[in-house]
Amino acid sequence: MFTEIKGLNEECGVFAVWGHKEAAQITYYGLHSLQHRGQEGAGIVVSDGNKLSAHKGLGLVNDVFNQDVLRNLQGKGAIGHVRYATAGGGGYANVQPLYFNSQKGGLAIAHNGNLVNANHLKHQLEAQGSIFQSTSDTEVLAHLIKRSGYYTLEEQLKNGLSSLKGAYAFAVMNERQLMVALDPNGLRPLSIGRLGDAYVVASETCAFDIIGATYEREVMPGELLIIDDTGLRSERFVSPGNRAICSMEYVYFARPDSNVDTINIHTARKNLGKQLAIEAPVEADVVTGVPDSSISAAIGYAEQSGIPYELGMIKNRYVGRTFIQPSQELREQGVKMKLSPVRGVVEGKRVVMIDDSIVRGTTSRRIVHMLRDAGAAEVHVRISSPPIKHPCFYGIDTSTTEELIASNHSIEEMREIMGADSLAFLSTEGLKAGIGRSEAMHNCGQCLACFTGEYPTEIYADTVHPHAKV
Amino acid sequence: MFTEIKGLNEECGVFAVWGHKEAAQITYYGLHSLQHRGQEGAGIVVSDGNKLSAHKGLGLVNDVFNQDVLRNLQGKGAIGHVRYATAGGGGYANVQPLYFNSQKGGLAIAHNGNLVNANHLKHQLEAQGSIFQSTSDTEVLAHLIKRSGYYTLEEQLKNGLSSLKGAYAFAVMNERQLMVALDPNGLRPLSIGRLGDAYVVASETCAFDIIGATYEREVMPGELLIIDDTGLRSERFVSPGNRAICSMEYVYFARPDSNVDTINIHTARKNLGKQLAIEAPVEADVVTGVPDSSISAAIGYAEQSGIPYELGMIKNRYVGRTFIQPSQELREQGVKMKLSPVRGVVEGKRVVMIDDSIVRGTTSRRIVHMLRDAGAAEVHVRISSPPIKHPCFYGIDTSTTEELIASNHSIEEMREIMGADSLAFLSTEGLKAGIGRSEAMHNCGQCLACFTGEYPTEIYADTVHPHAKV
Amino acid sequence: MFTEIKGLNEECGVFAVWGHKEAAQITYYGLHSLQHRGQEGAGIVVSDGNKLSAHKGLGLVNDVFNQDVLRNLQGKGAIGHVRYATAGGGGYANVQPLYFNSQKGGLAIAHNGNLVNANHLKHQLEAQGSIFQSTSDTEVLAHLIKRSGYYTLEEQLKNGLSSLKGAYAFAVMNERQLMVALDPNGLRPLSIGRLGDAYVVASETCAFDIIGATYEREVMPGELLIIDDTGLRSERFVSPGNRAICSMEYVYFARPDSNVDTINIHTARKNLGKQLAIEAPVEADVVTGVPDSSISAAIGYAEQSGIPYELGMIKNRYVGRTFIQPSQELREQGVKMKLSPVRGVVEGKRVVMIDDSIVRGTTSRRIVHMLRDAGAAEVHVRISSPPIKHPCFYGIDTSTTEELIASNHSIEEMREIMGADSLAFLSTEGLKAGIGRSEAMHNCGQCLACFTGEYPTEIYADTVHPHAKV
Amino acid sequence: MFTEIKGLNEECGVFAVWGHKEAAQITYYGLHSLQHRGQEGAGIVVSDGNKLSAHKGLGLVNDVFNQDVLRNLQGKGAIGHVRYATAGGGGYANVQPLYFNSQKGGLAIAHNGNLVNANHLKHQLEAQGSIFQSTSDTEVLAHLIKRSGYYTLEEQLKNGLSSLKGAYAFAVMNERQLMVALDPNGLRPLSIGRLGDAYVVASETCAFDIIGATYEREVMPGELLIIDDTGLRSERFVSPGNRAICSMEYVYFARPDSNVDTINIHTARKNLGKQLAIEAPVEADVVTGVPDSSISAAIGYAEQSGIPYELGMIKNRYVGRTFIQPSQELREQGVKMKLSPVRGVVEGKRVVMIDDSIVRGTTSRRIVHMLRDAGAAEVHVRISSPPIKHPCFYGIDTSTTEELIASNHSIEEMREIMGADSLAFLSTEGLKAGIGRSEAMHNCGQCLACFTGEYPTEIYADTVHPHAKV
Repeated sequence: MFTEIKGLNEECGVFAVWGHKEAAQITYYGLHSLQHRGQEGAGIVVSDGNKLSAHKGLGLVNDVFNQDVLRNLQGKGAIGHVRYATAGGGGYANVQPLYFNSQKGGLAIAHNGNLVNANHLKHQLEAQGSIFQSTSDTEVLAHLIKRSGYYTLEEQLKNGLSSLKGAYAFAVMNERQLMVALDPNGLRPLSIGRLGDAYVVASETCAFDIIGATYEREVMPGELLIIDDTGLRSERFVSPGNRAICSMEYVYFARPDSNVDTINIHTARKNLGKQLAIEAPVEADVVTGVPDSSISAAIGYAEQSGIPYELGMIKNRYVGRTFIQPSQELREQGVKMKLSPVRGVVEGKRVVMIDDSIVRGTTSRRIVHMLRDAGAAEVHVRISSPPIKHPCFYGIDTSTTEELIASNHSIEEMREIMGADSLAFLSTEGLKAGIGRSEAMHNCGQCLACFTGEYPTEIYADTVHPHAKV
Repeated sequence: MFTEIKGLNEECGVFAVWGHKEAAQITYYGLHSLQHRGQEGAGIVVSDGNKLSAHKGLGLVNDVFNQDVLRNLQGKGAIGHVRYATAGGGGYANVQPLYFNSQKGGLAIAHNGNLVNANHLKHQLEAQGSIFQSTSDTEVLAHLIKRSGYYTLEEQLKNGLSSLKGAYAFAVMNERQLMVALDPNGLRPLSIGRLGDAYVVASETCAFDIIGATYEREVMPGELLIIDDTGLRSERFVSPGNRAICSMEYVYFARPDSNVDTINIHTARKNLGKQLAIEAPVEADVVTGVPDSSISAAIGYAEQSGIPYELGMIKNRYVGRTFIQPSQELREQGVKMKLSPVRGVVEGKRVVMIDDSIVRGTTSRRIVHMLRDAGAAEVHVRISSPPIKHPCFYGIDTSTTEELIASNHSIEEMREIMGADSLAFLSTEGLKAGIGRSEAMHNCGQCLACFTGEYPTEIYADTVHPHAKV
Repeated sequence: MFTEIKGLNEECGVFAVWGHKEAAQITYYGLHSLQHRGQEGAGIVVSDGNKLSAHKGLGLVNDVFNQDVLRNLQGKGAIGHVRYATAGGGGYANVQPLYFNSQKGGLAIAHNGNLVNANHLKHQLEAQGSIFQSTSDTEVLAHLIKRSGYYTLEEQLKNGLSSLKGAYAFAVMNERQLMVALDPNGLRPLSIGRLGDAYVVASETCAFDIIGATYEREVMPGELLIIDDTGLRSERFVSPGNRAICSMEYVYFARPDSNVDTINIHTARKNLGKQLAIEAPVEADVVTGVPDSSISAAIGYAEQSGIPYELGMIKNRYVGRTFIQPSQELREQGVKMKLSPVRGVVEGKRVVMIDDSIVRGTTSRRIVHMLRDAGAAEVHVRISSPPIKHPCFYGIDTSTTEELIASNHSIEEMREIMGADSLAFLSTEGLKAGIGRSEAMHNCGQCLACFTGEYPTEIYADTVHPHAKV
Repeated sequence: MFTEIKGLNEECGVFAVWGHKEAAQITYYGLHSLQHRGQEGAGIVVSDGNKLSAHKGLGLVNDVFNQDVLRNLQGKGAIGHVRYATAGGGGYANVQPLYFNSQKGGLAIAHNGNLVNANHLKHQLEAQGSIFQSTSDTEVLAHLIKRSGYYTLEEQLKNGLSSLKGAYAFAVMNERQLMVALDPNGLRPLSIGRLGDAYVVASETCAFDIIGATYEREVMPGELLIIDDTGLRSERFVSPGNRAICSMEYVYFARPDSNVDTINIHTARKNLGKQLAIEAPVEADVVTGVPDSSISAAIGYAEQSGIPYELGMIKNRYVGRTFIQPSQELREQGVKMKLSPVRGVVEGKRVVMIDDSIVRGTTSRRIVHMLRDAGAAEVHVRISSPPIKHPCFYGIDTSTTEELIASNHSIEEMREIMGADSLAFLSTEGLKAGIGRSEAMHNCGQCLACFTGEYPTEIYADTVHPHAKV
């Protein structure tokens, strides 16, 4: 329910609206639909045209906001943020939107992504006397804005963005304007929609569906949108690079009902499953998927292969953050936590277990054993993406290279570690074909760095892996 | 996540264990897997052989228990309970297990079901000077036990049970013994398992899987089990009636990974879906199910019909009890709550929407409209059970007859109210065939009262519908 | 602030009102003024003429009640209770008023005092099948009422009270009537007042002052008051015994602004101090009292002796229940907790330290040392009551005989244990003279049992000392 | 209990320690004894020599800290702060110590006082790109330190302090050093003590008594103390001005057991009361003081005049921040809140009511009426300080000039407003004589600005009155 079951976590979700008299409420529902992108903290800053008001806190959107809080957030513009749960992430001070006050007015910033040169910039700024409130890379942009020497937020922001490298989807707001910017490679998704006369912006289009908004288009790489009471204006702050949208959004992160760059996620995943059935067929009795993210791929695999799709395991929806971990002794006695096998389905059967990706391999291993304990005759593991061999520096909390199982083992070794009867991954070509960007669109690039090691931007010696402790 | 999306709610879940040194921990995990049966409150009473200790509270299992609380519940025997959320349900005092102390020792009772003669018995007992602590029908049994005039709990309990009528699965515990009893018709499910040397009892077998226990057998109608340090002993307190286990457990309540009377729930539901495809076929492009309970039936319908199964709607998992309801205005603007359509899947398609049952019909109506708004060309509603026309007095919180849509409208009228292109229900014969009890077992009866109005027990003029306000 | 600094604690405070449209609010303020009589829990039950509503909880009145809760307690009659903090006191279930529901209606009971035959009665009732909800002696009265066989609450209550022995001030309420009863010896204080047309009843008259009510008279020993919409009626349920009101109410428990049996507490204490100065004079430079309860006596001693009264020590008002105890090491380094000496006042001075009573002697010892450490040249301890040598069975949580220092040591031994330069107690005759009941009133008896061992009622072998664990 | 009953509030209390292995615990107890100086928030920052750790929060010291929190604050040095409750005070971000992190290390600042040129400085700093985290004037010093261009904290701090004007007692700490600075006029109190080998610093000496420390001396105006593992070093960062310690510390703020500049507060107040009895005698039966701050003056008045001192009113200790205000209707019916009269003491008597100061006069008026309602024959108000006619800019939250009753009314008008039989204030000369600084010490100046309007520092057009909204 609250967290997916593997060590692969999205950084954040961003939502913004301008021109709606219940901007905070709209943002609240938008953040709800983006909750899967981050569960550590949530926040909303609103503008009523004259002043900003903010509320944020640790926990889920539901924990942080209540009716009274929302009522006090009156305004026509709002930006909101959900943040991914990290161990050393600095707690409350790092919950976004970051919010700054001065005698001249307020400033709020929400960010999805990761800056690869944040440490360099922070060093320079502190040497000049700037005091940082958080340990988040996002705050660097605030100081760049304040020190730019320009007068308008638009100039200040363009100036600040020109120093940044890496992946970013920013929503920035002062009393009078909402601005939205995407990095030159468009590494993170960001879409624009309309809700009546209002403009809305969100990391995923599922946020439009929940509030009844209409999808307009994607924010373009290197584009800066300025939205205010006069409407929306598009600017370029940099010439666009090659589009390199994160492949893992399609494979794992985004909600099945979202479209990323006009491609529906459920459909993409089902196609990945079909592609996988073509590339790596197997004789079996049932196909099952690891809930929730691998269900679509499993359905695709079943449809292509003709093997019936079944619920082979169940996710315990009530395992939240306050769940008490079983003792080692009870765990050895067989106490389960996040997943239960459906004995009535797998007993005596040859099972194809579809998972969307493998990071450290420990979860897959546990699931294979669980299925065997429940009586599965054979367990064939099929992964609907290529092996992850390289760390991500753009906002995905993959493990370090040492921890990535595919970085240190052959497929046969992995199969043996997991205890599976067979193991196969989708090929990179199969991934591209399954997602289908090349056929669907003009600027069809996508980031495959975690599979191939080819990073679309520079990486520095001290680039901080997201959520490493600062 | 927290509640299913229709007005049909299970009363409770019961779990018990005797002979395990971490009885409270085991019960905690067992209750977790039964959380879908009740979210209002949860409680555990343990016995260490000399005294009982109790903890209970309003909310989910995770809200009520933490590490410290569990550590203080030391004992070898335990009974636990999750309770369904009701409006007028008396709050904390009604959270079970009910727990009573006297100079002679303690007594704890957990109950799933509903007594049809509770009001009569309570009237008699109060007239004789008994003071009730709760408004729950369960407490009647405690007073009957205390006033029986017998010395041993076994005799007291047999005497007490002989006055009860209706549906009940009881777990009763004092310092030295755990007792478990099922009503003469076996209206509610109750299974026995082993965990090492310990005995475990649960409303559903999924509780055995989560703790690594082995299924032994069902508790029999009219059976009283006495479990203590000398082992398990089976007694009869009444001659068994016809088995009449609740059909809705198969259709809707139980978890897909549970087996009820040895029949797997997911498989039963998939068979109901197949049966439905045979009885009520339709030309269409995609099959989709209302999450979570109708997914299995939808897969079955798809498999039988050859129409692809797709994720046509998504459940918002983070809509909990603290979720802020959208204002009427926002709702009209299209703000969704529990379900979102997957536009990319249904747009331009002829959709078969599988639901497991219809109570008031308002949810189905909302879903049909939501699918149409998302672009569905046609919406064909197929229900994997017969129309519910009669109230349940055995522990299911169906609406009153006035509110049951099928009790007041023809199928064509219902179709029109819902705005569907076509509507069909499974037949009663199809239901029986799909579940498959007749082929699978000796005492194969099941309660079909909500479909047929034929109640397996007496019903009195003042029989309290569960959760009517007392 | 929250607790006095010695091991001598009042059981409870009772408040009741009938005939005021904001009965709950009035009771809330009344309980506030009685908060010093009990800090474990608080509760209010109201009647609107047709039904009772209740709210209670653990903690201070301020912790338990808020604006919303009070608003929901609509009614014209109310009884309220504050309960003293005990270790083994059974928690929430024992918080009063006890509140019982039946098909015939509700019943609420609040009690100050202690029943000496509660154990006998409870044994009998349980043997007949009654189930107790709490471990409090108060609940015995509820079961006696329910089993009386009479029809009206007045008859039921008279019948029930006739079985009770010990100290009690009861407020009992159903939907239509408020009843108030005092034990035959009048061991506990209970006063009647008027607030407009409404009647109010309280353990202390300070509750009348805070709500602006007018004092009428004391409830008489053995009197039963029936208050309803027709007014107040006085009945006798037993012939009155000798008045034996608790002397410690004058010495220590009651608030200085209360009058007990028409005698002002501050004035009584000041007179005890004067009397003490006459009986036990000493040459000294300053008189100081242990805050808060001994201030009045210290002022009296100063006035009589001509030695200036000074603030020789200060109570730390912010030491609440969540205060973190200093480690043994820090304590040895001199970390103080509840009291600080005023070095500027006591340094180099001969100090008379007035305390109102001594229970275990540990606090007095600590204070003497603290004053010496702060530079006092001499410390002369004067106690404004006689030595406490016998346990109380009437609702005061004195220690057992073994722990009472005066029960096991001569005055000279006590002086040495405390490290004082001199020590003197007030005589029993001085106590009676100082309080001045004999001159002031007709039925002038008072309970001196803790000083003399002469108990005004029977005491049984198994009489439970208040707050011994049941 | 939690707040005094007039509109006159201290800003803050500061505590610091270096060289004690339980620095956080020591600071916790120190802050407890300073709790009367601020109840909005509390915080502690510790240094273990290598890094700083912080914890702070809104509420009382007891609310903010618990055993677990303190255990996690390991270190040998600590600074702590309690903050006064303000309406527009910015909430959590303004709770002190302010705490800043950079790649070079941490910095913590705690402040008692008010800077009269904070607005000017903040304007300059923001224009240069500094981002403020709080709305507190204290943060100005942090930015001055970071922008100083010096390398050591000592140089940075001296440089920063040289820009400040107004009243300040600062405690500043990094990983290796604790520094303490007092403004050139010494407007706020700050004392040094020893606890074994450790140094302690506190706003009041009562903090030394509670932890068992020994008083050493006052921090001097314009003195900078550097405390580290090598000991304590005294520096001057500015030539000292005339000592101008706040007179209201003696009259009202400080705890009776503190010594301010070696003068005991209780003794000073008693002398003010004696002086008042000489200057403004009256024929009466009893003397009583408004609790708690006027008790000492009342005792002095009684001793000098020979009229007996009595408890004429009682403070309700349980009226905390969650207390529910009585409705207007109940208030008119006589419901009291913070003070109750002692009817048994004042009825029929001529009462001298001693108060230490008058700000808006509303409380005094209420008390006079309350005493009359309780039957007082005459009420003579005597104030143990001169009329407050001018606002304070140095950290005391007096009202604005418009609200100061003495600024707009003659004494006779005030008497009539209050409804007193007579009213008299102490003279400024009487105040100086009563406090006795002139006889007691060399640099004997004191700030009398609120009585005389003669401010010891410059005041700017935009000097922010403490707690005006920024």
